[in-house]
Amino acid sequence: MQTIESYHDAFVTYLSDFVEPKEPKALYEPIQYILQLGGKRLRPILTLMTTEILGGDYKKAMDAALSVEVFHNFSLVHDDIMDAAPLRRGQETVHTKWDVNTAILSGDAMLIMAYQLFENYEPKTFRDLAKLFSKTALEVCEGQQYDVDFETRDDVTIAEYLKMIEYKTAVLVGAAMQMGAIVANASEACQKAIYDFGKNLGIAFQLQDDYLDAFGDPETFGKQVGGDIIENKKTILYLKALEFSNVSDRRQLEHLYGINPSDPSDKIEAVKQLFVSSAAAEATSQEISRYTEKAFAVLEGIEISEQGKAALKTFGKGLMKRDV
Amino acid sequence: MQTIESYHDAFVTYLSDFVEPKEPKALYEPIQYILQLGGKRLRPILTLMTTEILGGDYKKAMDAALSVEVFHNFSLVHDDIMDAAPLRRGQETVHTKWDVNTAILSGDAMLIMAYQLFENYEPKTFRDLAKLFSKTALEVCEGQQYDVDFETRDDVTIAEYLKMIEYKTAVLVGAAMQMGAIVANASEACQKAIYDFGKNLGIAFQLQDDYLDAFGDPETFGKQVGGDIIENKKTILYLKALEFSNVSDRRQLEHLYGINPSDPSDKIEAVKQLFVSSAAAEATSQEISRYTEKAFAVLEGIEISEQGKAALKTFGKGLMKRDV
Repeated sequence: MQTIESYHDAFVTYLSDFVEPKEPKALYEPIQYILQLGGKRLRPILTLMTTEILGGDYKKAMDAALSVEVFHNFSLVHDDIMDAAPLRRGQETVHTKWDVNTAILSGDAMLIMAYQLFENYEPKTFRDLAKLFSKTALEVCEGQQYDVDFETRDDVTIAEYLKMIEYKTAVLVGAAMQMGAIVANASEACQKAIYDFGKNLGIAFQLQDDYLDAFGDPETFGKQVGGDIIENKKTILYLKALEFSNVSDRRQLEHLYGINPSDPSDKIEAVKQLFVSSAAAEATSQEISRYTEKAFAVLEGIEISEQGKAALKTFGKGLMKRDV
Repeated sequence: MQTIESYHDAFVTYLSDFVEPKEPKALYEPIQYILQLGGKRLRPILTLMTTEILGGDYKKAMDAALSVEVFHNFSLVHDDIMDAAPLRRGQETVHTKWDVNTAILSGDAMLIMAYQLFENYEPKTFRDLAKLFSKTALEVCEGQQYDVDFETRDDVTIAEYLKMIEYKTAVLVGAAMQMGAIVANASEACQKAIYDFGKNLGIAFQLQDDYLDAFGDPETFGKQVGGDIIENKKTILYLKALEFSNVSDRRQLEHLYGINPSDPSDKIEAVKQLFVSSAAAEATSQEISRYTEKAFAVLEGIEISEQGKAALKTFGKGLMKRDV
């Protein structure tokens, strides 16, 4: 077994060979730019790790891992246009540094390149990878659409919210791991289990992201604490608080989510208090634990080495502690 | 052999089953809309026809044909955003009827769905189709980028222009036909030849589109005659006219391509005169014939029935007469 760092470094080396300059420059330079902006490379590391844990050679999983990373970055480029986001990882987004048209077209090319990365595999492996990829990619689009739809709806249920984050975020974590399993020629039962592990871990991770956005340590969270509250984003905390509150607290919360004060600190504090007093904060914590435990429970059923299980658990726990 | 009309009708029936309503509506409704706007369905008809000419069952080529049509419409949706085009086939474009974000995301989903349409084929066929598709799709993106780049360049060569239209338009015609050949299990040599036939015919068609934009019959052309001249679009006529003209005519043409009069009729007439007097019009006609002949010459070398060759020739000639 490699360490996380050595997977990371091997992947980044492979990536840098991939982003060689190509013509037309205006199409390929933004692709090089976004792929080299950094990031933790969690998804491709999971692909490589899964292949090795399941008895394969992680080097054979490089193209699959790269495909996942290229797809993930494609979705960032197009989502950033839709969100009118000026920054990504502290740097200018593609549509800001270039323009919207460039970001659309370079994104399209990345989606195609992600499929091309499967071409060196055997026909059967190629088809399995591409099928999983297409299913996942379409779910990511659907998740993004639900996220957009929810902005203007005031009747979003918690079940709908969970489905949205599952599609928008978690299925790609599951697919990244299943791709590793496909490259390692794992059985379908094993592939399914490893997918469920990744998906549940992905949901737990996203719920925790919602939680930390309100209650995280500003020193370590990496994003502005309270950012979701400032943007009136209907996260799991908000939806649970609405569900659990009495009429007057609900009105108060809805009022706070209708204003955009220039200094948001009082609003943030008031909303956080409602999240705590309604027990939404506590319920969200429990939900995070529930999905994390669900992920680990799936692991128990898979026929892999104890060492492999331990490695995935360590990775999962590290991820949920945000020190990976 | 089926008639063109029967291929068309069979395809449109198949398409209408494909565009059933799905959730989330905001993602899938624009896809139904653009796919049912009509159009001549030339590319999918070529796929079906090629399969049958090469001894296959055209019904087996339906998914491949649909993939080509879905991809073509994906590229229209995203190109219309980039061109800020309000209308497509006389109806509102997707980003006009909905908004830019919807057009981006629905387009992305269409690109993925185009790949999914290969999933019912055997692994080897699946890989061959998907590889050809990816190569072609990336070239279409590159062609679109070159087209954008050319708008702000004043040193575009005719060779560059030909490469641009080859990538942006012609390779998809070639690929549509090669996909039909792949489904029919044709040899690689045959696949290559049928691709070259389609590609050369596609170039001839696009050059003729340039020609007819200036010299076509307003009654039958279908688009506004002179549209390219109004938009100062550097077509083959313009590039050849620049190349063939003396200094004073070149200056005159460059001047005309720098103005945007509210009534463009005098400008259109003056430019057309320069296209004729410089012999650019005649040279373009010859270029169209050259590519058409090249396409037909490739046909001669393919091992297919005389009936098949005749059908492809008839289709090609009909296309170049614009009565298909």
